[in-house]
Amino acid sequence: MEEIEVRRHADAEAEVLVEGLPGVGHVGKLVVEHLLEEFDSELVAEIHSQHLPPQVTVDDDGLTELVSVDIHYCDADGVDLLLLSGDHQSQTIDGHYKMAAEILDLCRDMGVETAYALGGVATGEMVEEYSVVGASNSESLLEKLEEHGVEFGEGEPTGGIIGISGLLLGLGELEEVEAACLMGETSGYIVDPKSAQAVLDVLTDVLGFTVDREDLEDRAEEMEEVVQRLEEMNQDVDRMPKMPSEDDLRYIG
Amino acid sequence: MEEIEVRRHADAEAEVLVEGLPGVGHVGKLVVEHLLEEFDSELVAEIHSQHLPPQVTVDDDGLTELVSVDIHYCDADGVDLLLLSGDHQSQTIDGHYKMAAEILDLCRDMGVETAYALGGVATGEMVEEYSVVGASNSESLLEKLEEHGVEFGEGEPTGGIIGISGLLLGLGELEEVEAACLMGETSGYIVDPKSAQAVLDVLTDVLGFTVDREDLEDRAEEMEEVVQRLEEMNQDVDRMPKMPSEDDLRYIG
Amino acid sequence: MEEIEVRRHADAEAEVLVEGLPGVGHVGKLVVEHLLEEFDSELVAEIHSQHLPPQVTVDDDGLTELVSVDIHYCDADGVDLLLLSGDHQSQTIDGHYKMAAEILDLCRDMGVETAYALGGVATGEMVEEYSVVGASNSESLLEKLEEHGVEFGEGEPTGGIIGISGLLLGLGELEEVEAACLMGETSGYIVDPKSAQAVLDVLTDVLGFTVDREDLEDRAEEMEEVVQRLEEMNQDVDRMPKMPSEDDLRYIG
Amino acid sequence: MEEIEVRRHADAEAEVLVEGLPGVGHVGKLVVEHLLEEFDSELVAEIHSQHLPPQVTVDDDGLTELVSVDIHYCDADGVDLLLLSGDHQSQTIDGHYKMAAEILDLCRDMGVETAYALGGVATGEMVEEYSVVGASNSESLLEKLEEHGVEFGEGEPTGGIIGISGLLLGLGELEEVEAACLMGETSGYIVDPKSAQAVLDVLTDVLGFTVDREDLEDRAEEMEEVVQRLEEMNQDVDRMPKMPSEDDLRYIG
Repeated sequence: MEEIEVRRHADAEAEVLVEGLPGVGHVGKLVVEHLLEEFDSELVAEIHSQHLPPQVTVDDDGLTELVSVDIHYCDADGVDLLLLSGDHQSQTIDGHYKMAAEILDLCRDMGVETAYALGGVATGEMVEEYSVVGASNSESLLEKLEEHGVEFGEGEPTGGIIGISGLLLGLGELEEVEAACLMGETSGYIVDPKSAQAVLDVLTDVLGFTVDREDLEDRAEEMEEVVQRLEEMNQDVDRMPKMPSEDDLRYIG
Repeated sequence: MEEIEVRRHADAEAEVLVEGLPGVGHVGKLVVEHLLEEFDSELVAEIHSQHLPPQVTVDDDGLTELVSVDIHYCDADGVDLLLLSGDHQSQTIDGHYKMAAEILDLCRDMGVETAYALGGVATGEMVEEYSVVGASNSESLLEKLEEHGVEFGEGEPTGGIIGISGLLLGLGELEEVEAACLMGETSGYIVDPKSAQAVLDVLTDVLGFTVDREDLEDRAEEMEEVVQRLEEMNQDVDRMPKMPSEDDLRYIG
Repeated sequence: MEEIEVRRHADAEAEVLVEGLPGVGHVGKLVVEHLLEEFDSELVAEIHSQHLPPQVTVDDDGLTELVSVDIHYCDADGVDLLLLSGDHQSQTIDGHYKMAAEILDLCRDMGVETAYALGGVATGEMVEEYSVVGASNSESLLEKLEEHGVEFGEGEPTGGIIGISGLLLGLGELEEVEAACLMGETSGYIVDPKSAQAVLDVLTDVLGFTVDREDLEDRAEEMEEVVQRLEEMNQDVDRMPKMPSEDDLRYIG
Repeated sequence: MEEIEVRRHADAEAEVLVEGLPGVGHVGKLVVEHLLEEFDSELVAEIHSQHLPPQVTVDDDGLTELVSVDIHYCDADGVDLLLLSGDHQSQTIDGHYKMAAEILDLCRDMGVETAYALGGVATGEMVEEYSVVGASNSESLLEKLEEHGVEFGEGEPTGGIIGISGLLLGLGELEEVEAACLMGETSGYIVDPKSAQAVLDVLTDVLGFTVDREDLEDRAEEMEEVVQRLEEMNQDVDRMPKMPSEDDLRYIG
């Protein structure tokens, strides 16, 4: 088995890559999974790697699948997209670099000129108004995004951007792929479909397509109920606010 | 020394591999060690690796042996089996992949067509009735197991299957080896011979052989006494329930 | 992408390398950043590596840059210097060795004969008088530094010198590059511009150039105010002294 | 720089290797350092490695040295020995294997037929009588050691033997080098010169040489005073027994 093993299942051509691997608030993952549900898509490539967890997922019928990062071609209301999705990022530092480089190579071969890395930026407190913060390796892309209401800079996010999202911009910079990161503000404590909606708004606006968002709205409502229930439980138990556990949320998200 | 070093000691031929390396409740390990005790077996291959702990075990006479993963041929009441056993799994992420790939290669060379990975699934509470949960990379194997009383799906186990068990299914899927995981429900706090008995019941039923289980029953009784003693001790000491330490249990297991 | 990837942007020639990557009290980083601000400099080489964090930094305009270690040529008041700076050191053990070896190679190609690794040595308590402790892989360099008021030995620093600073001396020893480490005493709890001033005093004295230090003095004053404010806050809150968090300080430093 | 880099400084010939790298109670390290102090010795090989900490030590004059594992030839009262010493073991799992294999290769080239790995076995409580527990990869060596009062087996040490000591036996087994581990019982909380004396007694007895032990006795007395002082301090401070910190002890040991 190779360190990174790509299985190509179909040919595809698209100028835009949208990345939504797990991260803060699972914001990017929610957006990309929403696109996969709403539009026709085709699995173009599966990436297995010795840098991903040594793990299979089990579906509702008991059927297993080796952890992978997937590239789908998606016809988003007439706009060609490649979508990068999966349940895990690299578990090692060098793996982050190697997988990002491999993904960039693959996508450039399929015609990608611009990459959008979607994610969340943790505010540490419950968010009232869901802004979208941006960053890019390209000044012209920054200008374009600013016209669509994305907020920039003033040192945000303070810790920089890490993982696959960061490296699509960072390695993209070295290999001359224009890339931007769109980060929905989110508390950082919950899987956040509301933040995902805010990012989706920007993305559809920038790329020029429309998509039904009912499903995300339903999830946002569910999430609100769960948070409320957990808050009540906590008040009953110890009169101290406590956040839902990662397990509670993973189950929901 | 190679990253993974295989020492072949004998030739063997078998269609079925049964894996029982350490994991939740040491369920798989107990089953495979039981088979090794009850039936004639022969050491076919020893696998040493830079991904295993840098460690020797010491036997009761003071004689040492380098940590290894072993493959035995076993004549289980007329059924040919290869048994995978050892005291440790890989200590690194990439090592899990590399060792699982090496083991699959070795076993296919010896005629293996189906692999059973044995383990436990932690319920977080004391188990009353010991069910066996299954998962497989093959729909036909799923059907077969269901006929033998194995329970499936509804997202169990939620965290997927990790380590060597997961990868025998995951890499097996890529290399077209049919594989299933049989997981005995267990609290997750103790080495669990009762859970092992439940898994053994399914395994013997599926593979069509019988085996004496007295030894496992004795171990289950010992374990119950230990748990009871520890509970009493804890009650005396601080009136709070406390689980036995990993060391207590390793000594017992 | 290579494990370590060097991008050369300009030619340069200098006999002296000064290293100021992050470390105890960010002392070395403060000194080298001060030199970069006060003198004309040119980016000679950018080093990206799979051993650095998989991360981009984001500037005030939202423009991103892949984490790197940089070498600048700097004309320090007539003295030619190569300055090694960056926001991160290697995240892996072998990466420390590989990056230090690569940097030494690069610098020797540019004529470097002596390397000064700048850092802090943690005292664990607030420092009244800022001494500079030295260490070197060369006896003649030790003698030279002693003449400039650097203190030596008596087992200080007890833990040896780790990371890039340690390896510039350690690998320098193997490859016959004369190298010294200058460590400003610092509490270890704060980013410490006063300790940086002490180290800068020695460095300028040894290398024979002068530099404006107003900026470092301003930073030292800011830092003092912050520490005082945090002490007051802590007294108000819980009447117990508490050190500022890493985040507070990173923001300031 | 190579992953493991050996610098040969002299030729040597000896049938016996004695290893004393840091471990439980620093027992092995104390014995080998004692031999280096008491007998004439010559540095035969220095081993630097990307698996050792990225660190230099600093001596009392401020002179630095890159962390290494060293092999000295030592004329122990007429008995030829190779002594393996240093301040650190490998920091990585695979590094343990690679360094042990390299060391075995080197030593076999110098004629080594038997390796003694010295260490401590933690009892978890203060030791009254200092027994020496043994283990070996060779039955004939086990018998020989038993004649010299070494205790064996009954599953001791329960956790097996880890690190370089374990691998000299484990890899020695694969490469047909006879090896034994001699472990002095020690509390596990302190650097223990008394345990070192017990191990030294066995070693000199087995190898047939004599050595002055005054220095180790002095250290044992110092240690006892320190432990007593720390116990008194703790009684004064909080009336609770507390063990000396690793730093206290490193300073002493």
